[in-house]
Amino acid sequence: MTVHDTRHGLDRRVTLTAPLTLASGQMLDRVEIAYETYGSLNTDASNAVLVCHALTGDQHVASVHPRTGKPGWWSRMVGVGKPVDPARHFIVCANVLGGCMGSSGPGSVDPATGKPFAMAFPVITVADMVAVQLALLDHLGVGVLAAVVGGSMGGMQALQLAAAHPERVRSAVIIASAARHSAQNIAFHEVGRQAIMADPNWAQGNYYGGPTPSAGLAVARMAAHITYLSEAGLTEKFGRRLQDREALGFGFDADFQVESYLRHQGLSFVDRFDANSYLYITRAMDYFDLAAPHDGRLADAFKGTPVRFALVSFTSDWLYPTPESRRIVKALNAAGAEVSFVELESPHGHDAFLLESPELNRVVDGFLRAGE
Amino acid sequence: MTVHDTRHGLDRRVTLTAPLTLASGQMLDRVEIAYETYGSLNTDASNAVLVCHALTGDQHVASVHPRTGKPGWWSRMVGVGKPVDPARHFIVCANVLGGCMGSSGPGSVDPATGKPFAMAFPVITVADMVAVQLALLDHLGVGVLAAVVGGSMGGMQALQLAAAHPERVRSAVIIASAARHSAQNIAFHEVGRQAIMADPNWAQGNYYGGPTPSAGLAVARMAAHITYLSEAGLTEKFGRRLQDREALGFGFDADFQVESYLRHQGLSFVDRFDANSYLYITRAMDYFDLAAPHDGRLADAFKGTPVRFALVSFTSDWLYPTPESRRIVKALNAAGAEVSFVELESPHGHDAFLLESPELNRVVDGFLRAGE
Repeated sequence: MTVHDTRHGLDRRVTLTAPLTLASGQMLDRVEIAYETYGSLNTDASNAVLVCHALTGDQHVASVHPRTGKPGWWSRMVGVGKPVDPARHFIVCANVLGGCMGSSGPGSVDPATGKPFAMAFPVITVADMVAVQLALLDHLGVGVLAAVVGGSMGGMQALQLAAAHPERVRSAVIIASAARHSAQNIAFHEVGRQAIMADPNWAQGNYYGGPTPSAGLAVARMAAHITYLSEAGLTEKFGRRLQDREALGFGFDADFQVESYLRHQGLSFVDRFDANSYLYITRAMDYFDLAAPHDGRLADAFKGTPVRFALVSFTSDWLYPTPESRRIVKALNAAGAEVSFVELESPHGHDAFLLESPELNRVVDGFLRAGE
Repeated sequence: MTVHDTRHGLDRRVTLTAPLTLASGQMLDRVEIAYETYGSLNTDASNAVLVCHALTGDQHVASVHPRTGKPGWWSRMVGVGKPVDPARHFIVCANVLGGCMGSSGPGSVDPATGKPFAMAFPVITVADMVAVQLALLDHLGVGVLAAVVGGSMGGMQALQLAAAHPERVRSAVIIASAARHSAQNIAFHEVGRQAIMADPNWAQGNYYGGPTPSAGLAVARMAAHITYLSEAGLTEKFGRRLQDREALGFGFDADFQVESYLRHQGLSFVDRFDANSYLYITRAMDYFDLAAPHDGRLADAFKGTPVRFALVSFTSDWLYPTPESRRIVKALNAAGAEVSFVELESPHGHDAFLLESPELNRVVDGFLRAGE
């Protein structure tokens, strides 16, 4: 007879009993975490894999998204017969701190006032996100992770967890990510934030219960989306092809397919994401610089680490280009860590980590099995 | 005794007497052109050089800008002792059709209604801009240009003029430009347009006399500005350096220098540019595809051309990257044209064509002198 653990399964929540001290020094009380687990924790609790999501991801890594009805955002990587496999692993995925899918964020009710935090929510960091992930693992009875896996901002969390808490994880998979946010990446995020804040509906963040700053958020998403693709990919997919017309329209409708596509990306995003969460999470990414506490010496962040690392980058990713992964690999080598690295050929830019990629699956599968 | 020609000099205007038939088929009556000339037209009118400006440029190529008080936008290229030299050349620079510095554009008064055109202004193309440039040259008594010179959208006009009106120009200098707008470039423009149109002050374009959509226009400028620089240039100039502080602020002020810089770029732009003009001119650029009327065969646009061409690109320009220039060079070679091409080393991205560049000046100077 299987005893059902109510902590396990889809669509779970937990409220932390201890207040969380953030990197800023502020305290956050009664932190909520929305999460899912897939598979079963084995008797010695040695098969847990934490999957960390990217900027606009969530806990629905391999389950249908409740708002969009779409399959989990990484069901190509997580699922039966996939590299991260519930038949073999106890898989944990939580909405990040600052998010808008159930974990504490600016849209959550402030216990002190009974109203949404809005911009009174404290500014958080990737380290704070990881602290919450670890608290969740404590709750679930997971001491040491078999692996932490993430792409983009998920990779930042995996790096942060492995660097700051090497006693909590044996292997780390970091895909299409970086140990710091570049000036160009900060610049693109700032454009998105200014687009949101320029929307009068933003109202200094106090829009809950009223009209939301959807126009500003859509613009932010459109700008960001360009950075997720590659110039070559856009040219291949759209080129200068026209949308539902034979000739130029001589107007400001979406003449070109690429315009129509971008508008759709912006509009569909606002149905599933909170504008203030977008502000807070982009800020956390901008703040991320793993070498900063070590006077810029990235290798020192991994000194003597027993963690095994696998890094993957994609040739056409210009948001987190290969040199950013190489910089981490170099630091890990200098720190004497066990590290493997592969740059995969792809025309799909940063988005490649979310798309069908047998090579990526092969790399992650091989790396995880070698550590089991 | 010199007879002063009132058509010549700084801060001139002319209204075309004949209506202009646009590429869209629409007619535009009483087109106004704001322009400047520098130097004197020689007796056989053979020393005229037309300088074409980029998206946000204007006729003040080498004179102080009346709104910003700054030197002319290309005073590094145009001036005494410079490659385009009033001691040698009769230099003409006009605000483009659709602009906001005196030439007819959406902010101009519609003679039919006595009110600003706003979005009733017809959608224009680069070919329409060139038609207006030629009408201005007619007015000035310039039959055949010694040269047309332009960077970015100015290069598009130079290409269009040389391709469609080879009898009006002997030499063309095209810097950091392209014969078509790529999908990624259209995408970035669309983000800017959506940012403007999302601003409630835009009011379907009818904001003249009231509050302007400055917040939306600033966001558009910020997004565009990132594309004018290079990742390496941004890293070199700003990196992750903080602005006027010792540590992260844990807030949404401009913590990083790059944020502060971008915000400044956005805010200062709205003082000198009209949002509707931004919509119209970006649209014209998106529509530009010199090969389109020739079933995609760019070489056919230059068939049998007697015009001499010089093309220049910059290594770090990812908005109009070197392959776009090479594509033009290849087409010109196929058409049997006289063409020289150089890719210049620069960390400054697309902006390089506006910055101090002795190599660029040497190339342009040598090319112009060889044709005189």
